Amino acid sequence: MNTDTETLYEELQNVLGKDQLSTNITVREQHGRDESYHEPSNPDLVVFPSCAEDVRAVVKTAAAHEVPVIPFGLGTSLEGHVIPYERGITIDFSKMNRIVEVREKDFLVTVQPGVTRSQLNKELKKHGLFFSVDPGADATLGGMAATNASGTTSVKYGVMRDQVRDLEVVTPDGSIIHTGNLAQKSSSGYHLNSLFVGSEGTLGCITELTLRVYGIPEHIVAARASFQELDDAVEAVVSILQAGVPIARVELLDETSMVQANRFSETDYHEKPTLFLEFHGNEAGLAQDVEFTKEIVADHGCESVAFETDQGARNRLWDARHNLAYAYIHGNKGKKMMVTDVCVPISELSGAIRDARKRLDTFGLTGGILGHVGDGNYHVLLMIDMENPREVEKAAQFNEQIVEYALERRGTCTGEHGVGVGKQKYQELEHGDSLRVMERIKEALDPKGIFNPNKLIKQKEAGQ
Amino acid sequence: MNTDTETLYEELQNVLGKDQLSTNITVREQHGRDESYHEPSNPDLVVFPSCAEDVRAVVKTAAAHEVPVIPFGLGTSLEGHVIPYERGITIDFSKMNRIVEVREKDFLVTVQPGVTRSQLNKELKKHGLFFSVDPGADATLGGMAATNASGTTSVKYGVMRDQVRDLEVVTPDGSIIHTGNLAQKSSSGYHLNSLFVGSEGTLGCITELTLRVYGIPEHIVAARASFQELDDAVEAVVSILQAGVPIARVELLDETSMVQANRFSETDYHEKPTLFLEFHGNEAGLAQDVEFTKEIVADHGCESVAFETDQGARNRLWDARHNLAYAYIHGNKGKKMMVTDVCVPISELSGAIRDARKRLDTFGLTGGILGHVGDGNYHVLLMIDMENPREVEKAAQFNEQIVEYALERRGTCTGEHGVGVGKQKYQELEHGDSLRVMERIKEALDPKGIFNPNKLIKQKEAGQ
Repeated sequence: MNTDTETLYEELQNVLGKDQLSTNITVREQHGRDESYHEPSNPDLVVFPSCAEDVRAVVKTAAAHEVPVIPFGLGTSLEGHVIPYERGITIDFSKMNRIVEVREKDFLVTVQPGVTRSQLNKELKKHGLFFSVDPGADATLGGMAATNASGTTSVKYGVMRDQVRDLEVVTPDGSIIHTGNLAQKSSSGYHLNSLFVGSEGTLGCITELTLRVYGIPEHIVAARASFQELDDAVEAVVSILQAGVPIARVELLDETSMVQANRFSETDYHEKPTLFLEFHGNEAGLAQDVEFTKEIVADHGCESVAFETDQGARNRLWDARHNLAYAYIHGNKGKKMMVTDVCVPISELSGAIRDARKRLDTFGLTGGILGHVGDGNYHVLLMIDMENPREVEKAAQFNEQIVEYALERRGTCTGEHGVGVGKQKYQELEHGDSLRVMERIKEALDPKGIFNPNKLIKQKEAGQ
Repeated sequence: MNTDTETLYEELQNVLGKDQLSTNITVREQHGRDESYHEPSNPDLVVFPSCAEDVRAVVKTAAAHEVPVIPFGLGTSLEGHVIPYERGITIDFSKMNRIVEVREKDFLVTVQPGVTRSQLNKELKKHGLFFSVDPGADATLGGMAATNASGTTSVKYGVMRDQVRDLEVVTPDGSIIHTGNLAQKSSSGYHLNSLFVGSEGTLGCITELTLRVYGIPEHIVAARASFQELDDAVEAVVSILQAGVPIARVELLDETSMVQANRFSETDYHEKPTLFLEFHGNEAGLAQDVEFTKEIVADHGCESVAFETDQGARNRLWDARHNLAYAYIHGNKGKKMMVTDVCVPISELSGAIRDARKRLDTFGLTGGILGHVGDGNYHVLLMIDMENPREVEKAAQFNEQIVEYALERRGTCTGEHGVGVGKQKYQELEHGDSLRVMERIKEALDPKGIFNPNKLIKQKEAGQ
């Protein structure tokens, strides 16, 4: 510990319990990395608040010393959000993991930021409810709100931002504010909910969330449809959307991804480009939707389609999808994961995926394509040998080309993973003068620049 | 014209055409009022831009002289948004009324801010599409975005903020920015779309909008269900939502409102508390939803329910609903309209409406209850003799009590009409320290305070 850290440690000891504070190197290392290829960097200290008042005390101490604070959920970020490159204090929310209230009649739930989505869904099930956002990883809800996470069900239920009704936030000046209310809609004041969702810890620390939940659908049918060509699978999705079928999930896996999924999840699905689909609704309506979808995929040369109505088979299917990132990691020991995350207008999706596939072959990189194609959001998952500078360079170039392709078509560089440090270099190109507006907001709300500095927005000088 | 206005007029003449500029008193008076009880006040000048560059030129001139600019659509506001209490330049968008592009495959449309929702829907119909937000008045889309309007279909399709994919905005420093992109989702940067939607012209002037549209549903069924008691009608709505019926519209009209509707629209509906409902979906699913809803309303003592499947009868029903505000105005000549607009959590809706009915009787005011009850948003529509100070005072007190009731239950003072000047006094109570965050954003983006000054946020001193 250097002198500054020692001073900080002593001051924090006055406001937190002994077990809420650590400078242990193992603990610091756990908080110095995420699940991606981004280089690790440790915080000076890790704190474990138990309530908003604890967070406020930490923020006030940090502000007095102009030391960075970095909120941390479970570290499942793929863009380096939680890595403290400017050092400082990591605020770990694992002790704030309580489900505060389920308001069944209002379809709302209030949780602390350390609650994970699987923990929440386990509780909600008792009430016949579920939380819709499903990014694959079992992330914390605080982290999901901070990055505006989404996933397989967003095509029907929307993204994290659509579910947030209210946030309790500790702001850089140490205020504890509420960004919303419990009403279903409001035209009162600037919409702070949406500003803080996706702000990646740069404007405040989320200490409580009130989220919209849904009744578990009366009927659910899942399906796998495999195609000879990747392009046919993508075109089938566009047609399903065009036909107005209210699909709840529609995920694409290319051949490589199907091989990885089978190997890791011990399934025996066709190793061909495949759509994983799900339909939610009442029995009669759903039967009509399913029939219609069968016709559409057949028109697009679908080779085989299998429907799964029992929960066991459905769970196996979605587990295989959710474990895909881990399947790639497991199948490529010693390599690190880099995932592209662009989102394009649906009319540009086939072209974009065709282009990505071609570039992947040209670069000769190891990886596969998968994604939430109903939203126009797809990932190329690359496994990289970080010791091979040539491969690292190629992957970076590939990522850049994918982003440029999407931005030229008025898409976005990140559909759901967020900016963090990985997508920072594209912000100027994507936002132009809008970035000046974002910078002014950051300066106005965090004038000392201590909230997750140099994430999302590149600051002129750290601590200024 | 005083000297300052003359100078302004001359400078604007250098950047705009002669027909794009007016100081005519009739024109100024048309831009000095809205559709509500708020006191009129005229702008010094009215300009009629034809493109974003025109708006930018006006903003630059206004900024140089620190003169207010007030964006104006059709003046259908109910909270004084467009009334230039600080004088200055009103920017009328009636010349910017072009539908720029329909992107069928992407379910997107790009429009200029002066396009009205009926104009847009007429065009979209040719493509089998429709725009969902329906506030009753045939407002402009620029105005609807500025106030985060919503209406009868929000229970299914969401509010204005949910439909905005991108805005072109002229900011107070004269930049022309884009707040979003064409992708269905994005986690890139702060969510400026949501910040500018509902900002009521205080952060920028919207010069183009890209909006989400939907396919016209395969089947539509509308229904009227009348009840002996207001309370039963409200409880029926709560049960329909609880049962997970994906209702597209559910509107409540009390007895007084039914009388007004019949008189104005020459309909002969039962003059009892009534729900106007609509269902969108595929044929089979919809039949099941309708059957289920029939059972639910019967359980709540519904006296009669009439289904309308043909378009003529459906249109008559919704016209009667949409014309209700005008029906009240027509039925109460010489009086001015004041409409409450709170939104409460659904679990608090019955209590809130019961309370409002009781207070209305206690105060002895003329008015009725109606609303978008599926969202927990209801209005008490009061017709006031503005020459009678006692009545004006009673109406103000009533409005205040309705708001306080909603805020105590963590609702909002305005579900859809916006803050303007009418709801400003409740902002501190509703938002607490969040209001400081909003004030800082306003100061950071509009340091001279010239964009629709003293609307939404009370500025410390005009022009500061």
